[in-house]
Amino acid sequence: MFEAAELGRKISREDFDKMAPGLRTDLLDLQQKLRGTDFPVIILFAGVDGAGKNETVNLLNEWMDPRWIQTRAYGPPSDEESDRPEYWRYWRDLPPKGKVGLFLSSWYHHPLVERAYGRISVAEMDEKLEQIVHFEKTLADEGALILKFWMHLSEKGQKKRLRSLEKDPLTAWEVTPRDWEHFEMYDKFVATAERLIMHTSKGHASWHIVEGADSRYRSAVVLQTLKEAIESHLAAREVTKKVNAEMKGKAAAAKAKKAEKAAALATQPSILSSLDMTQTIEGADYNQALQEQRARLADLYRKAKETGTSTVLVFEGWDAAGKGGTIRRLTNALNARDYQVIPIAAPTEEERAQHYLWRFWRHLARAGRVTVFDRSWYGRVLVERVEGFCSEEAWKRAYGEINDFEEQLTQRGIVMCKFWLHITSEEQLARFNARGEIEYKKWKLTDEDWRNREQWDAYEQSVNDMVERTSTRNAPWTLVEANSKPFARVKVMRTVADALEAALGKIGKLGKRKKPSS
Amino acid sequence: MFEAAELGRKISREDFDKMAPGLRTDLLDLQQKLRGTDFPVIILFAGVDGAGKNETVNLLNEWMDPRWIQTRAYGPPSDEESDRPEYWRYWRDLPPKGKVGLFLSSWYHHPLVERAYGRISVAEMDEKLEQIVHFEKTLADEGALILKFWMHLSEKGQKKRLRSLEKDPLTAWEVTPRDWEHFEMYDKFVATAERLIMHTSKGHASWHIVEGADSRYRSAVVLQTLKEAIESHLAAREVTKKVNAEMKGKAAAAKAKKAEKAAALATQPSILSSLDMTQTIEGADYNQALQEQRARLADLYRKAKETGTSTVLVFEGWDAAGKGGTIRRLTNALNARDYQVIPIAAPTEEERAQHYLWRFWRHLARAGRVTVFDRSWYGRVLVERVEGFCSEEAWKRAYGEINDFEEQLTQRGIVMCKFWLHITSEEQLARFNARGEIEYKKWKLTDEDWRNREQWDAYEQSVNDMVERTSTRNAPWTLVEANSKPFARVKVMRTVADALEAALGKIGKLGKRKKPSS
Repeated sequence: MFEAAELGRKISREDFDKMAPGLRTDLLDLQQKLRGTDFPVIILFAGVDGAGKNETVNLLNEWMDPRWIQTRAYGPPSDEESDRPEYWRYWRDLPPKGKVGLFLSSWYHHPLVERAYGRISVAEMDEKLEQIVHFEKTLADEGALILKFWMHLSEKGQKKRLRSLEKDPLTAWEVTPRDWEHFEMYDKFVATAERLIMHTSKGHASWHIVEGADSRYRSAVVLQTLKEAIESHLAAREVTKKVNAEMKGKAAAAKAKKAEKAAALATQPSILSSLDMTQTIEGADYNQALQEQRARLADLYRKAKETGTSTVLVFEGWDAAGKGGTIRRLTNALNARDYQVIPIAAPTEEERAQHYLWRFWRHLARAGRVTVFDRSWYGRVLVERVEGFCSEEAWKRAYGEINDFEEQLTQRGIVMCKFWLHITSEEQLARFNARGEIEYKKWKLTDEDWRNREQWDAYEQSVNDMVERTSTRNAPWTLVEANSKPFARVKVMRTVADALEAALGKIGKLGKRKKPSS
Repeated sequence: MFEAAELGRKISREDFDKMAPGLRTDLLDLQQKLRGTDFPVIILFAGVDGAGKNETVNLLNEWMDPRWIQTRAYGPPSDEESDRPEYWRYWRDLPPKGKVGLFLSSWYHHPLVERAYGRISVAEMDEKLEQIVHFEKTLADEGALILKFWMHLSEKGQKKRLRSLEKDPLTAWEVTPRDWEHFEMYDKFVATAERLIMHTSKGHASWHIVEGADSRYRSAVVLQTLKEAIESHLAAREVTKKVNAEMKGKAAAAKAKKAEKAAALATQPSILSSLDMTQTIEGADYNQALQEQRARLADLYRKAKETGTSTVLVFEGWDAAGKGGTIRRLTNALNARDYQVIPIAAPTEEERAQHYLWRFWRHLARAGRVTVFDRSWYGRVLVERVEGFCSEEAWKRAYGEINDFEEQLTQRGIVMCKFWLHITSEEQLARFNARGEIEYKKWKLTDEDWRNREQWDAYEQSVNDMVERTSTRNAPWTLVEANSKPFARVKVMRTVADALEAALGKIGKLGKRKKPSS
């Protein structure tokens, strides 16, 4: 795989000086064009120590407009970072649309080094590589341009390069004992790199292997590749936009046609219609049950905190189903410094400039905390689907993206409960009307609520699909019969307490959660 | 995940009879439309025993035109099949373009059952699921419509269903002790199925979960889903065709523009230009070396045969580089019943109706044999790339597809060597001219040879990229300096012998290759 990167390719200073000004102007022009686009550029550098990763990043920073470029390099995770799922730190560093992000020692570093040192098996490495593929695919599916450069040196070349860096007093500090240790393991690193490149070179994010021995040659190749990639991505995005518009038209036509579906299929019960909506709990029974669950919860979440177990609660439901009131009853059992309620409304400007999952990643709390999402990432497959805010392809893809996201949380030991608060259409109407009559509740009722109500059937179908596609063992949906608010509150609190109890029982057996290796 | 498939949805006979004729006509019409298209339809059925997989397949066979539909079900692999990589049997059963293939107990069966019985770990199952994802993606990327139905029954529902099948003398034979054994493991199967569906539900091949308790309901859902999926795939293919045409135009424009690339980059050495083309071996030295390698090869391949180790040899190279003569010297060392030479020319009609990798899968020999490909699947990234026979996206994707393919062969223990026979441009010209002069060699020289020669630089770039992207530890490329035919022949034979020796050395340590579990 690396044979073609050991040919001794080089460029003379004269030739380089001849091509440089044109290339530099082109890149600056492209950067201006990028600013108006709806995608970020993500550039990764990895490879053999001494093959010019840092130098190339420096050159890019020098040549391009620094206001639209950001560089990120990673060492061992900070306290903040090890308290959260592994990818949290990469998500928060993603460049927004229109900007360029340069990454050093990124998500590839850990699997490469751990495998080369034999600290993880081939199967474990493959699993990490698959996770990377999913991560990059998720970004690319939303339009990100991802470029990955593997800077290569032959074994001889690396030795020579490290020696020459050591000789120069200006660069001697760059060569660490670890570099020489890695050099001794050259074969292992190269064999691991081969597998890494093979498994993660995908159409949406392929590797470019660059011969790193000559600084002018490798600079020229990276810059030229970057230029061509941005140009062709800009062209491809235009085609994509046209296609999406066309597909949207076809989808609308198909939707109109689908109304033809036989009544026998269209009128089947949904998962919501199967709920027993008469369930209720009243008066003293309610108070007693509420106090019981509150006490359980207060006790269990403290124990969870001690073991570093976080809890993520997701609330979705019909307008006026009582999400707010339920969340307040629940958080009453918790200490204010231990939980956060994140109300999800329209995204901010900063959030709109990122992948739709970014704004949820950023709110993930440190280990031991409780995070309550009042509405959530499920907006993608609910309101965005029903209102056509995103393409059919995008919301269908979202089920997988959401499962990936939640798997990363639960694998990190986070306890997850997701609630759909269900009320009947009649109950909603009654509540809407009541709100309209009570002065201090009027603000809660908006035109949007009425519009959403007209889409009841479409939402019901979406909820059905959502539960089918995203209710999993570790992150199950609980459907809550909420015509009776007291019943709903008690059921939610009991469900959370049960989940915590089960998780603590497992931890009790396995011992305290280990810190992830850095 | 399965909650929504336990709602007791059903359709009355009356309602079903009302919707059936229309649906049936629609499906027959669509089948006619499919015949003219450039993609196959692949429909998979999996799920809980007794949930109606077989019945649904029977219904589809009854309702649709049997000439354009084929059904495949799999039991334990045959001798023929266990002698080859696992997916060989699925590849050979793929429906050609325009046809519908129904699959029962397909590639999902093995990972599901093995995991439910605890015979493989979660990580091993995940690896198998990733392989499935790659397989289906490879097919979908070339246009295949893939539909996967998971037929579900609740635990109670399954019990009831098996009981009722047993009661009816007409169906009692369908219920085996294994069905009851699986029923006892219901929870394990469902937990495994959840992971399976979560990991393999992709945009290009998503699962449809079908409530299987009522035969009319499940039939109606499958038929309706099938109809809608074919309709929307037909529409999407039209858009894709338009996009491809547009992208092709852009690619041509970009190609013309790329000529601007700075000379300093355009004139870098390639992996071919770095070869020492003066190497030669002559006269008695040649004869002796040839005899030596021939004897080694004859001995080693017989030992390989005893251990069930197959060999796959791939020959690519410039026109007139001497592939044929080299192959003949090599096969001289082998017994005629143990090897096959597969010359790859333009695909046959049957082959054109399949995925481009299909025709290579079909030629894989049984364990212990030697298969020599005179040209190969690398045509995709050589001639098809250079001549524009496939889109840029398609040949770029091919590197990954080829790596996947070869990984399946080498994982099965197949020894693989790939040769690029290199001659200089001057040598080729001399050989062309000589061919033109010798009467009995004239037939070998075609106009196409001269046309290919004009594309020398483009081919050189393609070979360079090919080696960079597909030369791996287990399936390495060997570049053969072939200006001297004798030198090339000896080098090829020595390389094959060395590879066999290394593989036999490993087997010697590990014991004879185990038969794969069925």
